Amino acid sequence: MENRFEKKQLVKKSENFSQWYVEVVLRSELADYAPVKGCQVFRPYGFAIWENIKDILDREIKKAGVKNAYFPLFIPEKFLKKEKEHIEGFSPELAVVAFGGGKELKEKLVVRPTSETIIYEMYSKWIKSWRDLPLKINQWANVVRWEKRPRLFLRTTEFLWQEGHTCHSNYQEALEEAKRALKMYVDFYREYLAIDGVFGKKSPAEKFPGAEDTYTYEMLMPDGKALQGCTSHNLAQNFSKPFNIRFLDKEGKERFVWQTSWGITTRCIGAVVMVHGDDQGLIFPPKIAPIQIIIIPILDGKNDKVLIDKAEEIKEKLTNFRVEIDKRREYSPGWKFNQWELKGVPVRLEIGPREVKEKKVTLARRDNFQKIEIPLSLLSQKIKETLDSIQKHLFEKSSQFLKKATREVFDYASFKKIMEGERGFVRAFWCGNPECEEKIKRETKATIRVLPDKTPEEKGRCIYCQKPAKKRWLFAQAY
Amino acid sequence: MENRFEKKQLVKKSENFSQWYVEVVLRSELADYAPVKGCQVFRPYGFAIWENIKDILDREIKKAGVKNAYFPLFIPEKFLKKEKEHIEGFSPELAVVAFGGGKELKEKLVVRPTSETIIYEMYSKWIKSWRDLPLKINQWANVVRWEKRPRLFLRTTEFLWQEGHTCHSNYQEALEEAKRALKMYVDFYREYLAIDGVFGKKSPAEKFPGAEDTYTYEMLMPDGKALQGCTSHNLAQNFSKPFNIRFLDKEGKERFVWQTSWGITTRCIGAVVMVHGDDQGLIFPPKIAPIQIIIIPILDGKNDKVLIDKAEEIKEKLTNFRVEIDKRREYSPGWKFNQWELKGVPVRLEIGPREVKEKKVTLARRDNFQKIEIPLSLLSQKIKETLDSIQKHLFEKSSQFLKKATREVFDYASFKKIMEGERGFVRAFWCGNPECEEKIKRETKATIRVLPDKTPEEKGRCIYCQKPAKKRWLFAQAY
Repeated sequence: MENRFEKKQLVKKSENFSQWYVEVVLRSELADYAPVKGCQVFRPYGFAIWENIKDILDREIKKAGVKNAYFPLFIPEKFLKKEKEHIEGFSPELAVVAFGGGKELKEKLVVRPTSETIIYEMYSKWIKSWRDLPLKINQWANVVRWEKRPRLFLRTTEFLWQEGHTCHSNYQEALEEAKRALKMYVDFYREYLAIDGVFGKKSPAEKFPGAEDTYTYEMLMPDGKALQGCTSHNLAQNFSKPFNIRFLDKEGKERFVWQTSWGITTRCIGAVVMVHGDDQGLIFPPKIAPIQIIIIPILDGKNDKVLIDKAEEIKEKLTNFRVEIDKRREYSPGWKFNQWELKGVPVRLEIGPREVKEKKVTLARRDNFQKIEIPLSLLSQKIKETLDSIQKHLFEKSSQFLKKATREVFDYASFKKIMEGERGFVRAFWCGNPECEEKIKRETKATIRVLPDKTPEEKGRCIYCQKPAKKRWLFAQAY
Repeated sequence: MENRFEKKQLVKKSENFSQWYVEVVLRSELADYAPVKGCQVFRPYGFAIWENIKDILDREIKKAGVKNAYFPLFIPEKFLKKEKEHIEGFSPELAVVAFGGGKELKEKLVVRPTSETIIYEMYSKWIKSWRDLPLKINQWANVVRWEKRPRLFLRTTEFLWQEGHTCHSNYQEALEEAKRALKMYVDFYREYLAIDGVFGKKSPAEKFPGAEDTYTYEMLMPDGKALQGCTSHNLAQNFSKPFNIRFLDKEGKERFVWQTSWGITTRCIGAVVMVHGDDQGLIFPPKIAPIQIIIIPILDGKNDKVLIDKAEEIKEKLTNFRVEIDKRREYSPGWKFNQWELKGVPVRLEIGPREVKEKKVTLARRDNFQKIEIPLSLLSQKIKETLDSIQKHLFEKSSQFLKKATREVFDYASFKKIMEGERGFVRAFWCGNPECEEKIKRETKATIRVLPDKTPEEKGRCIYCQKPAKKRWLFAQAY
């Protein structure tokens, strides 16, 4: 493996962003292409991030009173067809099982692209009375949406996600649940993934097929393209009616439930890679880094035992952190520095004979390459401070970029010029007519990403048709 | 929902075991039938057990230096065909995707029944040198094996499991890894699921298609049928050769790796239900119970606030346990007792006005229905003792049953009689001829379950053909 990495320098992020992305994902061993079209393998280093993400979100999901369950992978075709928009939205992306147990199936089975239909079929059996509400269930699962232009983490035929599905006795409670889930995702992106973005509502054309409203968190990638970070849907009664999910209310009257669904996928790992990485490779926010601290004893063949013992001793003191020691003798310290920088470990500790003698370690930050010497007596405290500082610094950089790359635009010529050039978010008036939205998309590849939360009403003119418009929406080309 | 449970008493376990099993799983809301043939839904209460099991095993797996990853759901048909026994073993059970993204696929994709082939295809890319070994990866995943006679948890077309896949530089190390995994499962069944059983090796006819040897843990269910609890395979070089997984050893020589794979599935939840349950419903071993303690304030409409406050206060003191309070006013205390007994919660705490006044609680054990009064000052300690005692008691009962239902048999007439009657394990000489094994199966429905570990060589005669035989194997009818 040594040869593979030494063969060639990593392409520079600033010079060829999309090539850099692929190289950094493959070389850091986050993921690999699978021998199945459109699919990827989550290698241990990449999957460890997903495990950290799952731990964080699972805790939040449970705190909100949502319980985990597991529903079948296969969905009978007829269920998908019960909600018209839903089947129209998903049918081009479906994988279909036609044979089972050696026989051709009479009714084909769809591999779940999302689980509303199969889950709601069960809900209609389980829910009878107001006593059964609210019903709040989540599942962590794999889903399949056939992908013609796959990109590692960002768009793959199979991906991993969580999907929450809740039922409520009234509209207001469902709306609040959809917004709670959105807020959970926003906080997660900001606090843990250190990625700033904009949250709010999707346009009708961009919402989930079958939802009344879709809420989302949109982020900007360094190439000026937007990435949708999550979705939370207020489904109203759009599914409860065709799936016949009814309950007896306290007055003994039969009503349809109000529903939400919400999810976040493994694509968020792609966002972390794109937003924080640099020419040397990945940079992980400490809160989700698989390894937060890599200890590298500077082995020289003379003092190896002393150095490794010291490294072990230090590791044992850092039980609050995710720490590893690179003890391999077959690689040089310099090679190891490069390797762990490529892998985005936030903090490196170097231990050489001088450090042992002076009861110090040398700490190198991944985000800005600063090196400081730390007396062992202050180690744990200084590491905590450094990790916090890296986490904060990464978020601040992301915020600054978001601010810089968001433009207020009032004429279509400027809009087009931006989309042909450096892209980014454009805030512009839109009249609400889907035709304008569609034409803008065709002419500039930019779509409406989101109506930012708390967007005030103003008086303006649609960026496309010049007719009166009340609100400014966020446009961008998107992944 | 109240009506559903009050409608009818649960069928008695002793009177109709298989009906009892279905009823107890459905009524306790562990699982439900899915509207997809052969599949089931894991409801929150059932899935919570799987989450506990995952936590326990995942910790052990990581302790053994195995890392989690995730490989694709879909496997190109040609990979499955690379190992001859493997494809022959699995082909009757496959689900096959024939359409993707609206088009008929040129090469059909199999929904993974197990992942050896797709994982080893990747291993052949990743492994180059002795430095890359051992490679030890695990995945938690769903798998699909078409099932004609499904049973909740025990046999479903889709099920959940973990599958570990390791590569080693020599035979001995692989063998040790296969045995380490087996020991992990054995300890897990005994310590956590409180189910005694017998571990050892499978006969060649019963091993995994493609393995050199398969190790297993076999348990007896109350109806005298055996259940296979896990498998751990020594794959030798049976896959590394067709998949071309080679490494350069320290001498620069190219060699094929030695491999293992090992797994445990959601069927173990079915074993817990069958082994420990009674006429009142489930009994969960405390170590994996989703709820270990249910607090029931005996609400009477007069002292409700005081009782609920006291219940909350007690719950806050029991932070080391999984505790819930049943505060619902729409159900009577008696109904709640039955309900939580059905659900198998190991310990119930009752709090009435008398308990509040005397600073006590009444504790009821689920396993033997004993009730004791505990002064609040000793609560945490007494609960710990009680849970430990229940865990131990369940295992002892299971051990006693195993002992009682295992018979030493030396003539085929007795063998047949046992299999026509109360069944159980039969220990008998077998000559090693697969024809005898096959005929015994056809005539008695009993298969060879396992050659118990450390079975000594003896002089005897095959239970079927009377020819000389050296070892006594364990036979049973099996799930």
